[in-house]
Amino acid sequence: MTTVILKKKISPRVVNGHPWIFGNEVNLIDGEAKPGDVVEVFTHDKKFVGKGYLNPQSQIPVRILTRDKQETVNEDFFYRKLKQAWEYRQQLGYVENCRLIFGEADSLPQLIIDKFNDYFVIQTLALGIDVWKPAIVAALEKIFKPKGIYERNDVPVRELEGLTQQKGYLSAPFDTQIVIQENGLKFYVDVENGQKTGYFLDQQDNRRAIQHIVKGADVLGAFTYTGTFEIHAAHYGARSVLGLDISANAVAQATRNAELNGYGDRCKFECVNAFDVLKEWAREGRQHDVVMLDPPSFTKTRDNIQKAITGYKEINLRGMKLVKPGGFLVTSSCTNLVPAPMFLEIIQMAAKDARRKLRQVTFLTQSADHPIVWGWENTHYLKFLIVQVM
Amino acid sequence: MTTVILKKKISPRVVNGHPWIFGNEVNLIDGEAKPGDVVEVFTHDKKFVGKGYLNPQSQIPVRILTRDKQETVNEDFFYRKLKQAWEYRQQLGYVENCRLIFGEADSLPQLIIDKFNDYFVIQTLALGIDVWKPAIVAALEKIFKPKGIYERNDVPVRELEGLTQQKGYLSAPFDTQIVIQENGLKFYVDVENGQKTGYFLDQQDNRRAIQHIVKGADVLGAFTYTGTFEIHAAHYGARSVLGLDISANAVAQATRNAELNGYGDRCKFECVNAFDVLKEWAREGRQHDVVMLDPPSFTKTRDNIQKAITGYKEINLRGMKLVKPGGFLVTSSCTNLVPAPMFLEIIQMAAKDARRKLRQVTFLTQSADHPIVWGWENTHYLKFLIVQVM
Repeated sequence: MTTVILKKKISPRVVNGHPWIFGNEVNLIDGEAKPGDVVEVFTHDKKFVGKGYLNPQSQIPVRILTRDKQETVNEDFFYRKLKQAWEYRQQLGYVENCRLIFGEADSLPQLIIDKFNDYFVIQTLALGIDVWKPAIVAALEKIFKPKGIYERNDVPVRELEGLTQQKGYLSAPFDTQIVIQENGLKFYVDVENGQKTGYFLDQQDNRRAIQHIVKGADVLGAFTYTGTFEIHAAHYGARSVLGLDISANAVAQATRNAELNGYGDRCKFECVNAFDVLKEWAREGRQHDVVMLDPPSFTKTRDNIQKAITGYKEINLRGMKLVKPGGFLVTSSCTNLVPAPMFLEIIQMAAKDARRKLRQVTFLTQSADHPIVWGWENTHYLKFLIVQVM
Repeated sequence: MTTVILKKKISPRVVNGHPWIFGNEVNLIDGEAKPGDVVEVFTHDKKFVGKGYLNPQSQIPVRILTRDKQETVNEDFFYRKLKQAWEYRQQLGYVENCRLIFGEADSLPQLIIDKFNDYFVIQTLALGIDVWKPAIVAALEKIFKPKGIYERNDVPVRELEGLTQQKGYLSAPFDTQIVIQENGLKFYVDVENGQKTGYFLDQQDNRRAIQHIVKGADVLGAFTYTGTFEIHAAHYGARSVLGLDISANAVAQATRNAELNGYGDRCKFECVNAFDVLKEWAREGRQHDVVMLDPPSFTKTRDNIQKAITGYKEINLRGMKLVKPGGFLVTSSCTNLVPAPMFLEIIQMAAKDARRKLRQVTFLTQSADHPIVWGWENTHYLKFLIVQVM
């Protein structure tokens, strides 16, 4: 097997368990391995580090799959990993839907698998994991006997790995508008054309956190996408709910979802730009008992971090102004580039500008089916905050 | 009314909303106010800051009660504040038990009121709030018509304010072993002789977080006190639960609580020193599916912070070693002197020493009936963490 020898003076990150080996950490690649092949990694003084997959074209030429010298990366390896991951999710209480594989945190770098009851959506975001797609599909078939498997590899990051963007069936074709249940509610999930894998499972535990504060409330939600938070609000007893999204498709899907649950009357959606509308409504003095914000990440790169900070601050400022004194702001951020303390600082800055005082009710992160490994920053990304706005 | 004039060059903390005025921030006290009286506070250039209570003997001679110049601090003020606080707890979903007043976070500095169904336990930890005890009791009578009110002012911190340590009835006498319900379970609370107010409500939401991970598990709990986490574990389907506490009274109370819920068979308690026993059992190679640690704060002062760090690291190291690979550690820290990032670092250090890898399942803080005001560090104290130990 081809061996990769690391340089002497590199950070202890890799030896301490991080699965990524950057180009500037590699001293030598010894052997004939093709891109995508599994290689063995050693320290400069020949200590075994692990086995990983190679892609010299990538900024991260090796990603570690196992630290066990005896373990062979083959079909069975993927079967064992997926089985283990499913057992772990079940142990955490997930029954129907979950992120089955959360890449690095499940020791399967750049592999994402979302389970939507009997349907599975896969992303293989690096060449070295992409080549194992047949083994991954075989493992899913064996463990779950799924009704359908779909590939959502229509993501630009694949191009950095020399892969094409693509999507389609990895099983017999099926109706890609599936229905899932969450917290006793039903939602259409568009696995073919929805955002990312079609549905944001990472907020599934957090959605229950609004249960008490929305009772009898007049609720405004922005960036609603599938309307899931809004429909939860109606379910938990909100008097009226209005959800905003800039995408007509999202508004259509959210409206369908509200109707599916019998909340079409109390839960309405509008196709508008939340940034503009929130500003306008604040100027008009509109007030809501609860304002919920679940904006996109505003940036994908560290270079644009200031843009993200400005974006989060601005939208939270606008949202906060629309909260009645004593009401609640429910706000999220989904990029690991804005760590939790920075996010809280941004909200604090917004409060200062809005001349409002805050009391923290709840501060959470992504649902537990997206495990966090400390120090592996891409595993820790979601912030979910509820504050009382006084 | 006596006025307190602040110095010119002080931190903007007070003007920005923090209720504490330290001795070295006071320029002048102008008037005849007695210790405990309400005074008006102004900046050096005569801008109104707020009204607060005075105690020249304290390191914090003034604590602000209101920022509203029109508001009078009288009986009705306390009635309004308590009513508002109860409405807020109800809004957050609390029905039977809650921390009704969490001092500074409820704008009533140094006042603690815990509600245990129809019984109330009060702490007035500063002179300026102690003098309002009759008004506070009257407000409780008016809002709740309680079955009993008890004062747990047997705390050393009162002596810094020139107050005596005392405890006793503030209502007609009643049986001080009361029974409360939490998450469908029943617990005896000893409001007369239990720790602090008799029961730790601050973990009441967190106790539900162990629901899934303890199913079918062999659970070990240390520092169990009233056995509440352990009895929750039995309730959520643990195969066997063993709780440890160094206090014979605690073990007796925990055992009684287990029996009260019909879990006397599956849930046992032992009177031992957890520090010693965990070390010994780790050496013997004992293994549990879940280990739960809820230790005391280890230090009350910033001078001893290193002692607290060492204590937390050591107990978590010992606990972690007792967790089966793939099992869970449930661990808490209840001092604001160890902030959340420091706590996570301590756990990470313990994992390194134990040669175990961790995955975060849940990271929470105190229950929402103990609101957090950012930057007011004594309002943010509890850390509650669940990690998978691999």
